[in-house]
Amino acid sequence: MFASVGAQTTVVLDGKLISMEIRSRIAAKVRRMKKCLGKVPGLAVILVGQRRDSQTYVRNKIMACEEVGIKSLVTELPNDCAEMDVQNAIMRFNKDPSIHGILVQLPLPQFITHLDEEKVLDALCLEKDVDGFHPVNMGNLAISGREPLFTPCTPKGCIELLIRSGVEIMGKKAVVIGRSNIVGLPTSLLLQRHHATVTVIHAFTENPEKITKEADIIVSAAGVPNLVRGNWIKPGATVIDVGTTPVEDPVCEDGYRLVGDVCYEEALKVASVITPVPGGVGPMTVAMLLCNTLVSAKRMLNFN
Amino acid sequence: MFASVGAQTTVVLDGKLISMEIRSRIAAKVRRMKKCLGKVPGLAVILVGQRRDSQTYVRNKIMACEEVGIKSLVTELPNDCAEMDVQNAIMRFNKDPSIHGILVQLPLPQFITHLDEEKVLDALCLEKDVDGFHPVNMGNLAISGREPLFTPCTPKGCIELLIRSGVEIMGKKAVVIGRSNIVGLPTSLLLQRHHATVTVIHAFTENPEKITKEADIIVSAAGVPNLVRGNWIKPGATVIDVGTTPVEDPVCEDGYRLVGDVCYEEALKVASVITPVPGGVGPMTVAMLLCNTLVSAKRMLNFN
Repeated sequence: MFASVGAQTTVVLDGKLISMEIRSRIAAKVRRMKKCLGKVPGLAVILVGQRRDSQTYVRNKIMACEEVGIKSLVTELPNDCAEMDVQNAIMRFNKDPSIHGILVQLPLPQFITHLDEEKVLDALCLEKDVDGFHPVNMGNLAISGREPLFTPCTPKGCIELLIRSGVEIMGKKAVVIGRSNIVGLPTSLLLQRHHATVTVIHAFTENPEKITKEADIIVSAAGVPNLVRGNWIKPGATVIDVGTTPVEDPVCEDGYRLVGDVCYEEALKVASVITPVPGGVGPMTVAMLLCNTLVSAKRMLNFN
Repeated sequence: MFASVGAQTTVVLDGKLISMEIRSRIAAKVRRMKKCLGKVPGLAVILVGQRRDSQTYVRNKIMACEEVGIKSLVTELPNDCAEMDVQNAIMRFNKDPSIHGILVQLPLPQFITHLDEEKVLDALCLEKDVDGFHPVNMGNLAISGREPLFTPCTPKGCIELLIRSGVEIMGKKAVVIGRSNIVGLPTSLLLQRHHATVTVIHAFTENPEKITKEADIIVSAAGVPNLVRGNWIKPGATVIDVGTTPVEDPVCEDGYRLVGDVCYEEALKVASVITPVPGGVGPMTVAMLLCNTLVSAKRMLNFN
């Protein structure tokens, strides 16, 4: 997709379209697995509490599984459940041979202090950690020369978008905005694996716009709507917007819409490549989750 | 220590002196442990092959242990040993209750391809991994909100030098030169934990001097003598030189001397704080190893 503003032509990366291609390839592989083994990959999702955005994300993941033929199971737990309930759900899926991927939808409800995210994630069987958040997987992502069993889905989706669009990463200056465990950290590690010169900026960074303005690639995962203005971007840079903040909008079906970190209209005039929100990174995250689940099933079932 | 060049006064961080203070504090704690429990911390070192610099490092570590009252054991294995020999040595120390820290001196001989560094390090008991190179420790160093059991010694020594010298890290621009698993990577993660804005530069980085010139803190761990010239440094910056490359020098006792990454004479005219080589980071690495071994013994023996 191209958007022309004045003399500048900006490539708008269509995450929806790219992810559809990936999903159809996955669907074909799942069909082949079913034909050869009589088995399909299985994904288990654990959802705690009633966060509206989490519910939407889980619904999208389940729908995507159905579409490609991956079996999915959802365990929904109430806000006031005991930590043991979450642990038990994980243990059950850890043992279930028909499940090859397990994810706990994050963030866990913050006001339930007894739900210790760390303990919950550690309980997850390493071989089924399709989100890649287990410390062993994260450590192996960080350590050069090692390979994690799974790479976190959103960062993997960002890199996939860059590679498929022919954006060179090696030797380029990349700036990651935000240092969350889910996106910022693993994205910076992945970009470094691809030999970019990576700077991570965050809430304590002074004059962030001076740093982003030097970058060939900006990946923004701050969760702050319209943080990245046009004058933060070097002309011709690539801008990947991971931000998806729900803001109320009575016009929308669900009463809210998702807004990115990047001031899209301004960025369009400066960047050479950009992702929209929604329809950019979001669909890629789901596609990478399907991909990780398929990879896990193939590994566990020894199927190529 | 101060060095005056023209109008500029540069603080030269005396790693030897600072590490002596740390070591004497550790010695006192070891004496107290011995008095209360009748036990002392124990460190096991495994050295494979005849690398001259590795032998020197191991000798220094053992001497430092003796000085503070930490028991030390060294297993020396020949270049042509089997991987199983290394594994067996690790297993023996893993089980030995008088040993609280185990380290395999890196790098392992490169020409022995059957020595798989990854397998060797994974065999090391997590609770005795005083070098902090196990993927779980590295993952927990990377993940915000988690704490590794051990932080790698050289990066920890660098941060200790910065903190003890009153160099502010939070919100400052830090550049790490080199992305090795042993120094560059964990140093960048640690600096980020201290809320610096961190950029990692490496062999694929174009115009590295443009990036270092913007930095408030430079940590160089490239292993390239005289890489960092005076014009790479912002006036008033802090420069930590981790580089210790042995270069032949018939005048020296061992026939070689250690040379840093930083062109010291030039840097002295620009930086406000600097570490010499030798006598800067090197002694701090050893002090941090003693510190990690003591912490491990205290944890295992439940002693405060």
